[in-house]
Amino acid sequence: MQTEFTSDAILAFEQRYRATFINSLGGFKSLALIGTKSKSGQTNLAVFNSFFHVGANPPLFGFIVRPDSVDRHTLSNILETGVFTVNQVHEEIYEHAHQTAARYPREVSEFDAAKLTEEYKSDFFAPYVLESKIKIAASLIQKTDIAENGTIMILAKINSVTIPSNCIGTDGFVDLEKAGTITCQGLDSYHTTKRLSRLTYAKPDTWPKPM
Amino acid sequence: MQTEFTSDAILAFEQRYRATFINSLGGFKSLALIGTKSKSGQTNLAVFNSFFHVGANPPLFGFIVRPDSVDRHTLSNILETGVFTVNQVHEEIYEHAHQTAARYPREVSEFDAAKLTEEYKSDFFAPYVLESKIKIAASLIQKTDIAENGTIMILAKINSVTIPSNCIGTDGFVDLEKAGTITCQGLDSYHTTKRLSRLTYAKPDTWPKPM
Repeated sequence: MQTEFTSDAILAFEQRYRATFINSLGGFKSLALIGTKSKSGQTNLAVFNSFFHVGANPPLFGFIVRPDSVDRHTLSNILETGVFTVNQVHEEIYEHAHQTAARYPREVSEFDAAKLTEEYKSDFFAPYVLESKIKIAASLIQKTDIAENGTIMILAKINSVTIPSNCIGTDGFVDLEKAGTITCQGLDSYHTTKRLSRLTYAKPDTWPKPM
Repeated sequence: MQTEFTSDAILAFEQRYRATFINSLGGFKSLALIGTKSKSGQTNLAVFNSFFHVGANPPLFGFIVRPDSVDRHTLSNILETGVFTVNQVHEEIYEHAHQTAARYPREVSEFDAAKLTEEYKSDFFAPYVLESKIKIAASLIQKTDIAENGTIMILAKINSVTIPSNCIGTDGFVDLEKAGTITCQGLDSYHTTKRLSRLTYAKPDTWPKPM
């Protein structure tokens, strides 16, 4: 049986129930740890699940920051230094990733608190997560304020990508499932995946087939 | 073995290889069919995978439209009427969803071409997908141009949510896996999910546990 909830009904939900409902509603999401460092050298690590693809030429992506949350250390470091890393999460480190969401004081590095290891590569200023298998170095391009609720959209470009060599297909496809990357739903639900298939390019007058 | 690709190396990739690489890199994504109707009554249905949560109060989300693609009929209908539906995809209809990405002429409804059924509810102008199990009615709030590559960010509010009653937990959590909602990666890879666990709220000095 299906139930329809109007926006009035949703707004009448108890606050925490509504947050859980809306956060879990939108679909499965990407999951990544953002690594940053302040100019004074304080590192920070935070889990995000709002990444979205923006373009391939130049390679651009975006994500959403909520300024009223633990995200704020990440945001201030990105605005201060212009750079950050994006580190994908696999089954062995998902509890660690979740733990970075705890409200630690500014002087605590979530790398230490969540038992993950800082890694520095190719003179990039921001720290990577050593335990992660797919990692991106990125630079801030644009910060857009969303007036309706005070959230902020960060638009960024990809500086470099580090990836296990055996996870890249002959057509350029990055096989995240092979790398063990997991997905999440809502604020606390973590999921592995199982491929149904890759489908052939969609054209009128044919029907897609598994590749 | 890991390989690091710099932005110069990525920009030197063959165009289609680069698009596949960057599109598949960012993580697992939400997957939904957006249903629209022009003022003159022409329906349109298109698959999108760039949804992101923006806020729970008011309930807001966003997605990215690439104006040089088949997305343009969706965009013009949303700008013309202000409303659209978001319909989640399960295993039985993922080939249908993929097929909506074919470049049909304006006068062809992808509902017909991809063998899905228009559904109208509660006097909402835009068509739902009858076969979908979780569906959202939404209204346009804001259109933001992303100058770097001509893409457009649509910010929208949720008007209503239709959902199987047995997929909502006592805390408001919407169990998408129970509803059969699938996830995708890149432009053509479709995946079911298997929950590892939901983890307890992250707090300093404790370690997250499965709920």
